[in-house]
Amino acid sequence: MDIAGYFPVWNKLTPEEQRAFLGAAKERTVKKGTVVHGGRTECTGLLLVKTGRLRAYILSAEGREITIYRLFDRDMCLFSAACMMRSVQFEVTVEAEKDTTLWVIPAEVYKGIMERSAPVANYTNELMATRFSDVMWLIEQILWKSMDKRIAAFLLEESAIEESGELRITHETIANHLGTHREVVTRLLRYFQDEGMVRLSRGTVTLLDKNRLEALQT
Amino acid sequence: MDIAGYFPVWNKLTPEEQRAFLGAAKERTVKKGTVVHGGRTECTGLLLVKTGRLRAYILSAEGREITIYRLFDRDMCLFSAACMMRSVQFEVTVEAEKDTTLWVIPAEVYKGIMERSAPVANYTNELMATRFSDVMWLIEQILWKSMDKRIAAFLLEESAIEESGELRITHETIANHLGTHREVVTRLLRYFQDEGMVRLSRGTVTLLDKNRLEALQT
Repeated sequence: MDIAGYFPVWNKLTPEEQRAFLGAAKERTVKKGTVVHGGRTECTGLLLVKTGRLRAYILSAEGREITIYRLFDRDMCLFSAACMMRSVQFEVTVEAEKDTTLWVIPAEVYKGIMERSAPVANYTNELMATRFSDVMWLIEQILWKSMDKRIAAFLLEESAIEESGELRITHETIANHLGTHREVVTRLLRYFQDEGMVRLSRGTVTLLDKNRLEALQT
Repeated sequence: MDIAGYFPVWNKLTPEEQRAFLGAAKERTVKKGTVVHGGRTECTGLLLVKTGRLRAYILSAEGREITIYRLFDRDMCLFSAACMMRSVQFEVTVEAEKDTTLWVIPAEVYKGIMERSAPVANYTNELMATRFSDVMWLIEQILWKSMDKRIAAFLLEESAIEESGELRITHETIANHLGTHREVVTRLLRYFQDEGMVRLSRGTVTLLDKNRLEALQT
C-alpha cells in the first residue's frame, strides 16, 4: 500500500494537493538506533511511519533523556516539523527503536496544504491533541507516581509491545525512557528480583510474575 | 471593544460565521477564586479572557495541584472545551486568579466553524502548540531543576506579573503552583530569608534581593 492508505484524510485532499503530497514525500528506511530528527533547529519534516517504531524524547543540558511518546505503524510525528508552527518552542529528538520504514513529508509542503485545507488542519489538531494527552499523562506520572510503579508499568508496556516476557534492554535505556538515573533503575530492578518478580541477566530483564507487576503499577 | 477585536482571525471568518460566533458567545464576569471550568466531563466551552487572569491546573487523586499555564488578557483556553476534540484525554481545572471578565464560546459552535474554516483550524493549532510549549517547559523544570531554583523563578515571575516586590501569597498557594508540598516551600523560603533574599510575614513574601534570586534561578 502506498502513502495514500496511511494518511487518514487523503480523500479530503484535492487532486492537486494529492499530487503535491505524493511528489514531495520521500520514503526512507533506517536502522535501529538511527537519529532521524535532532532538535528544533533542524526541520526534518513530518515523519509518517510505514513499519517500525520511533521514540521521541527530550534531552537535558546534562544529557539526561526522557521519552515523551513513541510512534508505531501509521503514526505521524509533527514535532520533527516544528518549524511549521511558530508557537512550538521546544526540541525533541526522534530515534528509530527498530529498523523502520517511513515517509518524510517536507514541512513547507505540508504547511502549504494545511493552510488551505480545513480537513488537514483539523487532522493535525487531533494529532497534536493526542501527543498533548501523552505528555499530560507523563506529567502526572512524574509528579504523582513513585519510580517503582513507573518501572513496573514500563516493563509491562515493553512486554506487550515486544510480545515477549524476555526484554533485551539495559538499565541505562530504561532510565532514559523514564527520565531518571541508571542507579535508581538498577536498585529497583534488584528489589523486583529479590521479590521474584523479574530475573536479571546481562542486557536482559525477564518478567517472572506479571500479576504482581500489574498489582504494583497501580 | 467587542469580541471581534479579541479574536485574531476574526477577519478570516465569513459574515455567517461571524454572526454564529457573536450570537453564541456569552460575556461573564467572575470573582477571584471562582472555578470556571472543572474537569473533562463538563464541557464549559472556550474561554476568551477580556480582562483578568485565569490559572489552568491539574489535580492528583490526593488533591495535589500543579499549574500548567496561566491566561492573561486576550488569551484563549481550549481545554475547557476538550469535548471538542476526541483526542484530548486529560482534565484541567480553570480558576480565576483575579476578578475576570471573559467570553464563553460554546464548544459545538466553535467546532462547527473550525471544521469548515482552515484559518480557524490553523489558529487553534497555534494555540495548542503554545500550550504544548508551556507544558514541555514545565516537564523540563520538574525533571531537571531543583525546587529552590523553581521557587526563585516563580517569585520573580509573580513579581513581574503583579508589578510589585511584595507578594500576597501563601506557601500553600506556591506549592499548588509548583506541584509540591507546602512544607517544602516553607523550608526553602526560610532558607531564602536566612540568606536575606526575601522577608516572610503572614500571607506575604517580600522580595529583598532580586539579583540574587535571578542568579539562583538559572
